[in-house]
Amino acid sequence: MIPRYTRAKMADLWTPEARFRIWFEIEAHAADAMVGLGIVPADAAKAIWERGAFDVERIDEIEREVKHDVIAFLTSVAEHVGPEARFMHQGMTSSDVLDTCLAVQLARAADILIEDVDALLVVLKRRALEHKYTVCIGRSHGIHAEPVTFGLKMAQAYAEFTRGRERLVAARKEIATCAISGAVGTFANVDPSVEEYVAAKMGLAIEPVSTQVIPRDRHAAFFAALAVVASSIERLAVEVRHLQRTEVLEAEEAFTKGQKGSSAMPHKRNPVLSENLTGLARLVRSAAVPAFENVALWHERDISHSSVERGIGPDATVHLDFALARLTSMMDGLVIYPENMQRNLDRLGGVVHSQRVLLALTQKGVSREDSYRIVQENAMKVWRGEGAFLDFLKADPKVTSALSDAELESLFNLDYHTKHVDTIFKRVFGEA
Amino acid sequence: MIPRYTRAKMADLWTPEARFRIWFEIEAHAADAMVGLGIVPADAAKAIWERGAFDVERIDEIEREVKHDVIAFLTSVAEHVGPEARFMHQGMTSSDVLDTCLAVQLARAADILIEDVDALLVVLKRRALEHKYTVCIGRSHGIHAEPVTFGLKMAQAYAEFTRGRERLVAARKEIATCAISGAVGTFANVDPSVEEYVAAKMGLAIEPVSTQVIPRDRHAAFFAALAVVASSIERLAVEVRHLQRTEVLEAEEAFTKGQKGSSAMPHKRNPVLSENLTGLARLVRSAAVPAFENVALWHERDISHSSVERGIGPDATVHLDFALARLTSMMDGLVIYPENMQRNLDRLGGVVHSQRVLLALTQKGVSREDSYRIVQENAMKVWRGEGAFLDFLKADPKVTSALSDAELESLFNLDYHTKHVDTIFKRVFGEA
Amino acid sequence: MIPRYTRAKMADLWTPEARFRIWFEIEAHAADAMVGLGIVPADAAKAIWERGAFDVERIDEIEREVKHDVIAFLTSVAEHVGPEARFMHQGMTSSDVLDTCLAVQLARAADILIEDVDALLVVLKRRALEHKYTVCIGRSHGIHAEPVTFGLKMAQAYAEFTRGRERLVAARKEIATCAISGAVGTFANVDPSVEEYVAAKMGLAIEPVSTQVIPRDRHAAFFAALAVVASSIERLAVEVRHLQRTEVLEAEEAFTKGQKGSSAMPHKRNPVLSENLTGLARLVRSAAVPAFENVALWHERDISHSSVERGIGPDATVHLDFALARLTSMMDGLVIYPENMQRNLDRLGGVVHSQRVLLALTQKGVSREDSYRIVQENAMKVWRGEGAFLDFLKADPKVTSALSDAELESLFNLDYHTKHVDTIFKRVFGEA
Amino acid sequence: MIPRYTRAKMADLWTPEARFRIWFEIEAHAADAMVGLGIVPADAAKAIWERGAFDVERIDEIEREVKHDVIAFLTSVAEHVGPEARFMHQGMTSSDVLDTCLAVQLARAADILIEDVDALLVVLKRRALEHKYTVCIGRSHGIHAEPVTFGLKMAQAYAEFTRGRERLVAARKEIATCAISGAVGTFANVDPSVEEYVAAKMGLAIEPVSTQVIPRDRHAAFFAALAVVASSIERLAVEVRHLQRTEVLEAEEAFTKGQKGSSAMPHKRNPVLSENLTGLARLVRSAAVPAFENVALWHERDISHSSVERGIGPDATVHLDFALARLTSMMDGLVIYPENMQRNLDRLGGVVHSQRVLLALTQKGVSREDSYRIVQENAMKVWRGEGAFLDFLKADPKVTSALSDAELESLFNLDYHTKHVDTIFKRVFGEA
Repeated sequence: MIPRYTRAKMADLWTPEARFRIWFEIEAHAADAMVGLGIVPADAAKAIWERGAFDVERIDEIEREVKHDVIAFLTSVAEHVGPEARFMHQGMTSSDVLDTCLAVQLARAADILIEDVDALLVVLKRRALEHKYTVCIGRSHGIHAEPVTFGLKMAQAYAEFTRGRERLVAARKEIATCAISGAVGTFANVDPSVEEYVAAKMGLAIEPVSTQVIPRDRHAAFFAALAVVASSIERLAVEVRHLQRTEVLEAEEAFTKGQKGSSAMPHKRNPVLSENLTGLARLVRSAAVPAFENVALWHERDISHSSVERGIGPDATVHLDFALARLTSMMDGLVIYPENMQRNLDRLGGVVHSQRVLLALTQKGVSREDSYRIVQENAMKVWRGEGAFLDFLKADPKVTSALSDAELESLFNLDYHTKHVDTIFKRVFGEA
Repeated sequence: MIPRYTRAKMADLWTPEARFRIWFEIEAHAADAMVGLGIVPADAAKAIWERGAFDVERIDEIEREVKHDVIAFLTSVAEHVGPEARFMHQGMTSSDVLDTCLAVQLARAADILIEDVDALLVVLKRRALEHKYTVCIGRSHGIHAEPVTFGLKMAQAYAEFTRGRERLVAARKEIATCAISGAVGTFANVDPSVEEYVAAKMGLAIEPVSTQVIPRDRHAAFFAALAVVASSIERLAVEVRHLQRTEVLEAEEAFTKGQKGSSAMPHKRNPVLSENLTGLARLVRSAAVPAFENVALWHERDISHSSVERGIGPDATVHLDFALARLTSMMDGLVIYPENMQRNLDRLGGVVHSQRVLLALTQKGVSREDSYRIVQENAMKVWRGEGAFLDFLKADPKVTSALSDAELESLFNLDYHTKHVDTIFKRVFGEA
Repeated sequence: MIPRYTRAKMADLWTPEARFRIWFEIEAHAADAMVGLGIVPADAAKAIWERGAFDVERIDEIEREVKHDVIAFLTSVAEHVGPEARFMHQGMTSSDVLDTCLAVQLARAADILIEDVDALLVVLKRRALEHKYTVCIGRSHGIHAEPVTFGLKMAQAYAEFTRGRERLVAARKEIATCAISGAVGTFANVDPSVEEYVAAKMGLAIEPVSTQVIPRDRHAAFFAALAVVASSIERLAVEVRHLQRTEVLEAEEAFTKGQKGSSAMPHKRNPVLSENLTGLARLVRSAAVPAFENVALWHERDISHSSVERGIGPDATVHLDFALARLTSMMDGLVIYPENMQRNLDRLGGVVHSQRVLLALTQKGVSREDSYRIVQENAMKVWRGEGAFLDFLKADPKVTSALSDAELESLFNLDYHTKHVDTIFKRVFGEA
Repeated sequence: MIPRYTRAKMADLWTPEARFRIWFEIEAHAADAMVGLGIVPADAAKAIWERGAFDVERIDEIEREVKHDVIAFLTSVAEHVGPEARFMHQGMTSSDVLDTCLAVQLARAADILIEDVDALLVVLKRRALEHKYTVCIGRSHGIHAEPVTFGLKMAQAYAEFTRGRERLVAARKEIATCAISGAVGTFANVDPSVEEYVAAKMGLAIEPVSTQVIPRDRHAAFFAALAVVASSIERLAVEVRHLQRTEVLEAEEAFTKGQKGSSAMPHKRNPVLSENLTGLARLVRSAAVPAFENVALWHERDISHSSVERGIGPDATVHLDFALARLTSMMDGLVIYPENMQRNLDRLGGVVHSQRVLLALTQKGVSREDSYRIVQENAMKVWRGEGAFLDFLKADPKVTSALSDAELESLFNLDYHTKHVDTIFKRVFGEA
């Protein structure tokens, strides 16, 4: 994880301390469950909770010798707990601890990401309502099409991140399972009730069938969900980058006091946040392919997934958390220039109304093909800078034979384009 | 799509005929909806349905001139319908037709894939029940661990594909939306009720807010779901490939009469189906990244996604359909060799029971660290081919001071490992 | 491969006929080589060439029975050649034929792609020279920076595709190897001289050590090279898409007679070719990951790579060929609007010269930090639309205490920015 | 970068100190070059070198205010150098420093990786020569095929990593360029001779045409080369994992004293290094796609690549360095079991010689199809465990009518399969 794209809350999930703490809880809860089964003396289970502690440096030291992290951890805990420690990990295998821990970490990471999206949704909704009727040109292919409103852009983003939230909720559900099933998942040495007990205590579902490990299709689906959310971040970031282009300048990232845009060009105000988000989206997405490749482990398990997850686990969650927070604050502070939106809207001399004219002509009985040709000819004159669209239409007998001046003028009214904005808002935000 | 990995039912969704037929239905339903709005005369709407037809070659011919597929299509239909055709596509934009059509195609593709998974689940369940207690060695890291059953392997696959099914159902839901919202999604020229009408007729939900196009995060999530399912296919295929290895030979793909394994080596029987599935999984997965990259379209839309989807739309669905069907038939016919499973199980002279011995020692008060060392020393002798594990244990005073011969012998009983198979089966398949 | 993105010359490499023809040549050359070794009678080798033929439908028919394509092919050829056919394929294995054939196909595909790049380079050079001094604004972060020339943009693209060409040449060299080494690459049943002979005849190098198959790191490197070239296509396509934006309109894809931009909006002229190229780049790139995944075949080989290559082999080469040709023709016809470039250049009221002013101030002894602040303050006034940059500077005592009006005016000369264009052109195109 | 997969030498390239040191050198060399141009006083250039220093914490502090890393760096240096510092960075832009620095870092990283491969090649050659004639079964599809030698496996890996080395050398050449061309690459404010001077001092080539940034196709090609090398690591790792399987056990990773294979199963010796390498390969490969996506920067540049490269720059180089070193030490210590190889070779009762028998039959005039059938029938009996291949052949009149017992016996000689090993070794390692 890259320090500058890291926030403490998410990063804290991934520290050695946090990981070992979860390991300890899993082991201690398991010991509790085994008391009921007569495997662990009640005193020992109590001692584990009471004297249970570990030392990160000591664990590292032991691991360098035994080359096995869970054994190193258990040895360190045993040094604090004393002889009762031998009752820990009874019939369990390392993966029972490691995989359940990863499930806890990813589920908690998902919780933070869902909170992040919630915060983003609040901002997007506010900006949507604020600019519900701030008209600007809609663009397809980067070319002026017909008017939309800035609020609609925000509503679209809101709807998209609502879907992203649902995907994160589903991903969290997929990943939040507990496996304490022993060496090859048969519960030969550990009763299924231990798994049930620990799962409940850790806020997880049980893994119906594990094979030493929790199956990695769950993790693949998890990281794929993150990749889709990251792609939605990229989409909104690219929108802002476009709007801030010098020639467009309909919106601008807030420029903080003291900030310098360019070491060489003092006049520059660059959309560096949204560009940064574009890059972060690529980074987060890059976790998906190795997560897919992790699924086909050999037989009951191989450990090839482990190094991958040591990377993508923290990286993808930390960077996505940062990106969502940055996007939220960027959208919150985004400076909107309605006057520039109007200026851009007027730029094409009215040809953005060409479809309405086309439709009006066909309604009057002109064939679709003829209407298209008539409108296109007049639009092209405007395109070449020869004048205004309405003027050309009024002067074209092929048009005026079907439409009066008054009818033509009415076709150039912007309200026409915003009449269903409220309908869309109700679909997206529900009834106010 | 690669002909040899193509099945007709799925491929038929993607023919030009199928596509144009869906286009036609969308346009004709939209015309019906517009009758109620007074935009289209009832006679015209009726004429469209009655005389509506198109000609694929004629469409191609027109498209070569106008370079626009929907216009070419409308022109061809108009040649059949006559003057009433001018009422088609009123206020609509090409993407209203194209994107809604793609939604229909992908939703239908998902239906087929879900059926495919259902067929696979039937086979997996049958094989699971058949071999519920067929004991074989479980392997972690490719190394013998402890006994499992072949039925458990099948139960694991069943559970994994059950999750895959849920992902496909979710992906279908995500993708099955209808957008008839006009040039930039504002419904300026087409009433929202048209969208609602067509959606209902085509079996789709409405897209709450579109921007000429249906947002591509939906498609990204769709292809990501396919990629995860493909990865699960790879996992099961790799399992079969391992089981068929010469040294293992616990299972074998059925060899059809007349089939030749190798042009050079007549003795060979190769797991070519499962190897093929491994490759197909890679192919299907390769759709995910371009689908992610398609999300960040510019402003209200650009058309960069289109060429990508012309490729991955048919390819990923067709190849996944084929792979699921091939996997089903492969698993259906898979020849299982229980006697080889037993032979492999016996190979290690009993060291697969080492964990039980370790646990028994700790239960008798030996420290975990000492127990581990004692067991490992004896296991390593077996590993070096010096004799049988039980014999060494019975001869080791460090062991015999804690465990009697009878106790040791009881630790070598296979039933110990299968005692919870039924519990797992109930979790996976429910109560019988 | 998608028909509309397919050109005949490249597609012809991938037909069954073309493949079987190469197979036949490999087998017939191998037979010739074996005449010298006394393994094949000279008459038989002659008969193979003379009567050698095959029938694609017949091969399909046989393959359905034997499920082995090379055996089916050999059987079909034998039906034409007669009894001498038994001398074909002596000591060879299917992969000797298949992998050498794929090497031939990919090498020929690379030849076509290199020709494609050469044609593109010709166009790029022509456009570069044509617009060597056509000044336009350079943009970083989408924000106006300082002047460049359109010719420089073309020179950059030329240099980038020159590197792409080198990568294709290297990729061709990597892939163009011949393996005729028998079942596991030991030459046990086929003398190394056969490989040498066939390699020379087919225009390939020998594979130093094969293992039934040619190692797939070669193919991975090949498809990765294609992916990088595709990314360069995307870069130039994105540049054109930006330049054609309504607000920018410095360049425009040529609009053919009869072409329709939008079914709904007759005024639109969309950069659909460059958008299409953006999508095609994603498609071509998607071959890289499965090609990487193909490298780690099991032991001496498994066949998982085969289905992948049936897809990506034709798809990536055909689509890249199409994309390069489309890019060439698009750049060839690209309409350049120098007057719009000038208009955009003037848009910022001269602040694009801010760095020169900054440098001039520091040269006069003002500290870098103070200079930056002074220039930024004046630039921001222009940004807010309050007036022209030069006017503000002339009115700022912090500026005028260091720079005279005449000095200031000289800092606004465009020639200053183009003085090294010729140097760069010499670096890129060499001395004229 | 993941600490446990990090080696100091490579990681040291990526510390803030190392980066700022390179920045400083670039700036100081540039100042030297500008002395000759009369832009920087000789005393100032001297002062920069003499008093030039920076403080990482101070830079962080300044950056938090100005939000621009190069400005923060220059400010920190200025605090040490004094007023002469204003002559630094004259006419340069941040990217001149950043991109040239990244080129230096990646070139040095490539140097380390090339050294890593060289060390690996030494080990592979040693193991190849050591086991040049250690015969083992070759496997295709995981099924026994015909004999090879372990030395051949090593020779194959040697040849593959030789190609990997060439790719790294090419990647290094691609990436090692210097750009000091100013705000948009025109050299408007900085003479091309400065770039030439700094390039020479930093061991780089000049970038023929830059656009503020060095074009990212270079970086894409760089990371793609790393991805291919990573895939080759995976291939060799997978080979070792297969050879260490319990049923195969032809080789085994060295087990260090004190190492524990499993917390639960004391008998286990797992191929954890090669599994780890498999995962690391996935991680390193995951850099390729975002590197491809970085190529299409907007216009003269956008900064979306930057966050990506902050991740993949260190991660991919550090993890690949670690993986190569781990692979080298793993291969160096790999324990080979020739007796197990022989045992596996004998497992199939001689059917691995089936191709020789097939060829001998055809040489005696039996048709290829008949020969295939005869051999397959006898092989299948052996497969079913009914006896030894040679015995069945000697008893089959269809065989004995063509081949005498002596002829048959001679076909079972292993030397037959190793007769060209020396030829292959000469191809791979050259003449000894």
